[in-house]
Amino acid sequence: MTISFDEALALDAADPLAHCRERFVLPEGVVYLDGNSLGALPRATAASVAATVERQWGGDLIASWNKHDWIGAPQRLGDRIAPLIGARPGEVLVADSTSINLFKLLGAALAARPGRTTIVSETDNFPSDLYIAQGIAGLTGAKLRMVEADAVAAAIDTDIAVVMLTEVDYRSGRRHDMPAMTAAAHEAGALMLWDLSHSAGAIVVDLNAAGADLAVGCGYKYLNGGPGAPAFLFVAEALQAELISPLPGWLGHHDPFAFEPDYRPAPGISRFQAGTPSIIAMAALEAGLATFDGVRMTEIEAKSRRLSDLFIALVDEKCPELTLASPRQSRASHLVFAHRDAYPLMQALIERGVVGDFREPDLMRFGFAPLYNGFADVWRVVDAIAELITTRAFDQPRFRQRSKVT
Amino acid sequence: MTISFDEALALDAADPLAHCRERFVLPEGVVYLDGNSLGALPRATAASVAATVERQWGGDLIASWNKHDWIGAPQRLGDRIAPLIGARPGEVLVADSTSINLFKLLGAALAARPGRTTIVSETDNFPSDLYIAQGIAGLTGAKLRMVEADAVAAAIDTDIAVVMLTEVDYRSGRRHDMPAMTAAAHEAGALMLWDLSHSAGAIVVDLNAAGADLAVGCGYKYLNGGPGAPAFLFVAEALQAELISPLPGWLGHHDPFAFEPDYRPAPGISRFQAGTPSIIAMAALEAGLATFDGVRMTEIEAKSRRLSDLFIALVDEKCPELTLASPRQSRASHLVFAHRDAYPLMQALIERGVVGDFREPDLMRFGFAPLYNGFADVWRVVDAIAELITTRAFDQPRFRQRSKVT
Repeated sequence: MTISFDEALALDAADPLAHCRERFVLPEGVVYLDGNSLGALPRATAASVAATVERQWGGDLIASWNKHDWIGAPQRLGDRIAPLIGARPGEVLVADSTSINLFKLLGAALAARPGRTTIVSETDNFPSDLYIAQGIAGLTGAKLRMVEADAVAAAIDTDIAVVMLTEVDYRSGRRHDMPAMTAAAHEAGALMLWDLSHSAGAIVVDLNAAGADLAVGCGYKYLNGGPGAPAFLFVAEALQAELISPLPGWLGHHDPFAFEPDYRPAPGISRFQAGTPSIIAMAALEAGLATFDGVRMTEIEAKSRRLSDLFIALVDEKCPELTLASPRQSRASHLVFAHRDAYPLMQALIERGVVGDFREPDLMRFGFAPLYNGFADVWRVVDAIAELITTRAFDQPRFRQRSKVT
Repeated sequence: MTISFDEALALDAADPLAHCRERFVLPEGVVYLDGNSLGALPRATAASVAATVERQWGGDLIASWNKHDWIGAPQRLGDRIAPLIGARPGEVLVADSTSINLFKLLGAALAARPGRTTIVSETDNFPSDLYIAQGIAGLTGAKLRMVEADAVAAAIDTDIAVVMLTEVDYRSGRRHDMPAMTAAAHEAGALMLWDLSHSAGAIVVDLNAAGADLAVGCGYKYLNGGPGAPAFLFVAEALQAELISPLPGWLGHHDPFAFEPDYRPAPGISRFQAGTPSIIAMAALEAGLATFDGVRMTEIEAKSRRLSDLFIALVDEKCPELTLASPRQSRASHLVFAHRDAYPLMQALIERGVVGDFREPDLMRFGFAPLYNGFADVWRVVDAIAELITTRAFDQPRFRQRSKVT
């Protein structure tokens, strides 16, 4: 027997993170469980972006690079992300997209392990990560070896330059053992590169405790930086002097305003900058990162776990037609359930103001963002699913029409 | 004998582009001649960005990818840039930064010319372009050959895969002969790649008339897209099926939402997308591109030329201490002048509300953006320079203090 709606409301009333919901603007009547795809809009973002556009760009024009420290945004925002992922100041940089940052670190890692020619990853990794690895393989003659998640550790031999894994699977939510996998990579002399896109801001990540070498991650999911927000990269301090970006743009130069014809890497993490970043996008991300002010990642992970445990328990009780396709134990902050009518079911849910997303072939995905999702939200969503399945109200042609973006 | 201030005002009154100044917000009392570095703020940008943040992201959340066609922004904005640079619809994509786009096209070009191993460029090219070419050379074993501008044509032999030039020199404003250089590249069997960062939106560019293969360019200079705006790339239609991006992110996949483990390039220009772009930055760029509505590039170039001709004539008359370091004939929309005290002179000008910029070692740079700069602006700027030189009011220690960004 699970809990009633009133009991869910009582859990929200007692939740120490409940006040964080006020940090966001959410449409009336909507339960948004897709923050793992696009984080909700923080209340402070509009004013922060408007000030950057109107007062800074409009009022101070080019002088803003100094006056408003636009030039320092990549490092400043990196330092705000660092405590969320177990990194030190100066180890994280905000720049470009996750894919571009991944390319930089894969290229640097291959060059740092001469004689080794293989990148190993898992077949179910987020496809863009695999495509980028295929891209660098095509340029350099390196190879990408893709194996099933369970087989990664065994595949790490002395030809592996770098192990590239996403900590949390974008579909199933399955979570890798970061310390164990990192140790396995190091034992074989390989570098370990983590993609934290579905981890950062959702669960406790401790890169330095795990001894991780390299990481990348996304600004627009749990970090609430806005659609297509700039991404981040991490390079452990001890490796920074050795690694060289294969995308050496002018902002990663030792002295960008000397305009020298030959590249000389900047000291520290700054060498991983390429071209000029969007400062308006940076302002939105900075407001997104401020939604974590005063909150510990241990509190966020604990609430995430309680939300997803409740979701599973309610589904077990009320929606036996759904099959949990996430691990019951080693998982992060989103869940997927299989159902043969997953696509129309999700579209019907969305029309009712319950927003998750669909993933091929038959998966409904729900993300839990503890800063703005609550226990009553979870209760309402499972109730809506149960009702749709009972009434078969999802079974209409318009819910089966595919959109460009699913 | 040049013209008086009243005559300059009369030229503004008769200028067919004078009304375009209302499309921008410029601070009271400032003459802004740095639009070649960061374009001014368009009047429509704040509302466009606010609508994207508040109504789209805040109100429609993840559904905005379809509902507000966020997914189509890279191609839609590319099609708006196309007529400014002599390209056809479907030949231009907005994505990433200029440096990243350059890397994509260099990588694609090298792969399309197997057996040829050299990129040729000029020593005075914008350094970031050279660094990126050095980056891809380091990964692939290709070579970058840097020669003086005058020696480029002679350096194109049968080992050259791609000729990479910036049409307009970022320092001197010198303009290459695009049709002649493109023909020279083709004669040797090489591909021709143009960087249009200091051309697009400032002068008439006709990529297709010149037979150019590839191009990249900047969104934040004359296109008024905001600080660090997304950049663009051009691939001639006939080459699109053959060229493959070495940065194959998921949005460049044939079917991004099938989430296949192997990369298959999207048809057409879309294959040159990598990761997810900032939609807020795209909204600002879209407003920037709208400042060109109803204006022909021939009108813009004609006014640019009249502005810079007047500037040179006034300097010749009033400031003989300045040495023109731009060519008198083959130049684009900015001018540089050498002066031993260029740095403090420029800082003193900026304090007086006359904004240009400094470039090493001793250059003062002034850009003319015909949509918002006028003839009276030019008159005021030269008058201010003459007065500063006469009074030596620039000769103060505070004007010699270097900033991070110069």
